[in-house]
Amino acid sequence: MNTAAFFIPAWADILAIGIGSLQGALFAAQFRDRRLDLLGVAVIGIATGFGGGILRDVLLNQLPAAMQSNWYLPTAVIAALVGMFLERIFSRLSKVITVLDALTIGLFGAIGTTKALAVGVPPVPAVFLGAVSAVGGSILRDLLLNLPIAIMQVGSLYAIAALAGTSSIVVSIAFGVNVTIAAVVGVVVTFGVRILAVLFNWSLPEQRRLEKI
Amino acid sequence: MNTAAFFIPAWADILAIGIGSLQGALFAAQFRDRRLDLLGVAVIGIATGFGGGILRDVLLNQLPAAMQSNWYLPTAVIAALVGMFLERIFSRLSKVITVLDALTIGLFGAIGTTKALAVGVPPVPAVFLGAVSAVGGSILRDLLLNLPIAIMQVGSLYAIAALAGTSSIVVSIAFGVNVTIAAVVGVVVTFGVRILAVLFNWSLPEQRRLEKI
Amino acid sequence: MNTAAFFIPAWADILAIGIGSLQGALFAAQFRDRRLDLLGVAVIGIATGFGGGILRDVLLNQLPAAMQSNWYLPTAVIAALVGMFLERIFSRLSKVITVLDALTIGLFGAIGTTKALAVGVPPVPAVFLGAVSAVGGSILRDLLLNLPIAIMQVGSLYAIAALAGTSSIVVSIAFGVNVTIAAVVGVVVTFGVRILAVLFNWSLPEQRRLEKI
Repeated sequence: MNTAAFFIPAWADILAIGIGSLQGALFAAQFRDRRLDLLGVAVIGIATGFGGGILRDVLLNQLPAAMQSNWYLPTAVIAALVGMFLERIFSRLSKVITVLDALTIGLFGAIGTTKALAVGVPPVPAVFLGAVSAVGGSILRDLLLNLPIAIMQVGSLYAIAALAGTSSIVVSIAFGVNVTIAAVVGVVVTFGVRILAVLFNWSLPEQRRLEKI
Repeated sequence: MNTAAFFIPAWADILAIGIGSLQGALFAAQFRDRRLDLLGVAVIGIATGFGGGILRDVLLNQLPAAMQSNWYLPTAVIAALVGMFLERIFSRLSKVITVLDALTIGLFGAIGTTKALAVGVPPVPAVFLGAVSAVGGSILRDLLLNLPIAIMQVGSLYAIAALAGTSSIVVSIAFGVNVTIAAVVGVVVTFGVRILAVLFNWSLPEQRRLEKI
Repeated sequence: MNTAAFFIPAWADILAIGIGSLQGALFAAQFRDRRLDLLGVAVIGIATGFGGGILRDVLLNQLPAAMQSNWYLPTAVIAALVGMFLERIFSRLSKVITVLDALTIGLFGAIGTTKALAVGVPPVPAVFLGAVSAVGGSILRDLLLNLPIAIMQVGSLYAIAALAGTSSIVVSIAFGVNVTIAAVVGVVVTFGVRILAVLFNWSLPEQRRLEKI
């Protein structure tokens, strides 16, 4: 399955990183007991905003995109500090942020999966790498804050939304769909699953063992 | 020291990953308070089953083996879910699992060290990379579960068994032994040290300082 | 901005790694409740001593320097064990160690930033990679010990000192300063900021939000 990567305009990429980073700072604001300083908030912003992309590129054995541009790091740092200072405003906008974030994980997933396919990675790990691109930032954020990894716990389908979207991309491309259309479909699927999961409180079952054996 | 990598048949590789992943899920089952969902169990399975191999390949600056095949990820996910559902059965088989696991860390260590040597890495880091291949999965598992890293604590020689085996491989090859024989010797050494440590409760001393200075 | 990397003599590199590793072991000695064994102390030494260099090289998509030499790993292991055994002596030398450590983060930062520039990384991520080289080891140390990440918390400008030094390098080189002179200036800036911060208790403000909006 040889394919081109799905590129989004630079402003969309920067915007998605900014949203991720801002969210990281809002999340960190709940933990005043950690005594994070301004640099700590910036680190959380960087980790949340493009940690997923860095994990993707490290696993693809490529120089990370964030190391090739002067724009990513300042975007993430400024977005994190804006999020921290204006937390009172953004906390009133939590619905808007949930919607933008659903779009962001859709975009990151689509970029990750198509980049993996473009490099020659087979379909199954390409789906995985798309999901890592989408949710890797939140994993790094939780590790750096010594918190349980949110995406591993019972909650509103976040990584599953990313996996659904990236799987749809691989299937579409296998059926000969053009990569841009496949990517757009993937973003829509991720967005839809995530928003529906939030609205209807969908979640995966908790870990359990069969008792009657 | 130029050498070929030690290859094991694909079925043995897949089996070893399955055993690692299944063990990760059994381990995670002790922590019901974490509220892991099915995806969380799958993530632990993936991390435990081939986290070591991914760390090895990232440190060798190579595209990870797990990103080059459609088989690794489903194997790890299915093994983890089987481990979770059938935990009551497997908990009765803990001796069998300890034996299979000792074999698994031996295999992962041998693959890691010979791959490192084949890439041109010098003997000392090759021993280190073999040990990382063997125990890296358990380190990632503990990080993702916010637990103390088991291999760093007083316990039955686990990483030491891997280091003994991978050291024996490097020494054997330096003495001109064929790579396959050296690898088999390495697996036997790791297996032997680990099983004897479990049987006789061998462990390393705890950290301590000299008091009379 | 095309430039050569700043090389330090091998003995200085080994010494810097030994100081980092020794400090890791002294730090770990505060946590007797973790029941670290000798291997655990060695792992902390390795992570603290050249974790930053490994993160740097992984992010630069290069084979890590530590995987290309037989000297790094034994240096880190021996320094960690010496630190552990002789903790009573070194704890009386804490001022000397603070000074040597300020020099070490300056050196690691200068090596990291100039290596990044030499590989063709733009200025902003080159500053970031220098800081990662300098403080990445302490981040890995804290992760492996399940501790809050020290550099993210209110404390005496540690990462900020590294960022100040690596920024000065990038600015100097942009103004046409020779790489060796720029690197020396960077080490002096990092050293100066760090030591002044310790002496005068300088720190960054804690995370806060604007309340009147």
